[in-house]
Amino acid sequence: MDFLPESITRLIEELQQLPGIGPKSAQRLAFHLLKAPDARLESFGDAVAGVKKDVVACEKCFSLTTENPCRICSDARRDQSLLCVVESTLDLIALEKTGEYRGLYHVLQGKLSPLEGVGPEDLRIAELFTRLTEADGTVKEVILALNPDLEGDITSSFLRQKLEAISPIYVSRIARGIPSGGNLEYTDDATLIRAMQGRQAML
Amino acid sequence: MDFLPESITRLIEELQQLPGIGPKSAQRLAFHLLKAPDARLESFGDAVAGVKKDVVACEKCFSLTTENPCRICSDARRDQSLLCVVESTLDLIALEKTGEYRGLYHVLQGKLSPLEGVGPEDLRIAELFTRLTEADGTVKEVILALNPDLEGDITSSFLRQKLEAISPIYVSRIARGIPSGGNLEYTDDATLIRAMQGRQAML
Repeated sequence: MDFLPESITRLIEELQQLPGIGPKSAQRLAFHLLKAPDARLESFGDAVAGVKKDVVACEKCFSLTTENPCRICSDARRDQSLLCVVESTLDLIALEKTGEYRGLYHVLQGKLSPLEGVGPEDLRIAELFTRLTEADGTVKEVILALNPDLEGDITSSFLRQKLEAISPIYVSRIARGIPSGGNLEYTDDATLIRAMQGRQAML
Repeated sequence: MDFLPESITRLIEELQQLPGIGPKSAQRLAFHLLKAPDARLESFGDAVAGVKKDVVACEKCFSLTTENPCRICSDARRDQSLLCVVESTLDLIALEKTGEYRGLYHVLQGKLSPLEGVGPEDLRIAELFTRLTEADGTVKEVILALNPDLEGDITSSFLRQKLEAISPIYVSRIARGIPSGGNLEYTDDATLIRAMQGRQAML
């Protein structure tokens, strides 16, 4: 790679450190940026360097926000009896975009992962329980909306066990099954089994 | 998206403008960067803003370089009788990495594309001919190494026609066929036809 100017090599190296971007993509992106006007590069560079500007975790739900508490937590019209536990702010946004859910959230900022050494103390789990205690019975249902993978399942089980101690909170979990528009033929066994197990009376 | 802090939204928008990066990938990348240390963000931001620093097109071959003429053009040990025409500096690097080719290059900085309105005057074609004229017979062979797609083919045909006028330059083109490790069964018809047409005596 020593044919390339150092500034280009450096950008390629930076880009390569991003998840899902390999050496070839990094090259292509760098060469794309080389053709961009200077103002665009300045603006992009600033956006990268300043991405954390004024960003804090909401003191209540730990979503990323510039207002503290965040807009959802300070919205009195939201259903204070529902608390949805998600892994990340991106998951919160995905759910918010549906416009269906009107309760509150709690962002764990990750999931338990014994393999990667992520334990309960690395997540906002203690804060979840403090919050439930302080809410003093207002929260009637905790909805576990973690991703349906191994670590998500471990985290859900762990939370359910700990939440059982705080009666009378009802603990639910988002449904698993065939996605809308999906196809049984191409659906993996684990999902099919879940879809069968989770079958519901057709009304 | 108005749940996200503005600095994050801005970075997502910048990332989305990159080729091959959609809204979801841009979100994931932005959230990845949010977890990076400040120094890393500064460094990445600088790399983006400064990617063009000291970068010029080599006055001879038009590859991107910080030395002018570039290291290849000023290397007297390179075979001055061979000139390989490529679309971009990335293609030049791909060929250089093989270590097989020891001639010179000429970077067109694109390819003819009637659909996108890229004509001969947008490429370094005039410069190629000036160069051949100035080389005054030193260049014996021009190797066309454009990408084997529609625009690449148009550009190759165009160049071959114009080069015919400058005898006695020999014009060749890199071979097309089944890639090493490839599989006839899964190879498209156009490639198979080319592979048959380009068959060579087995020695």
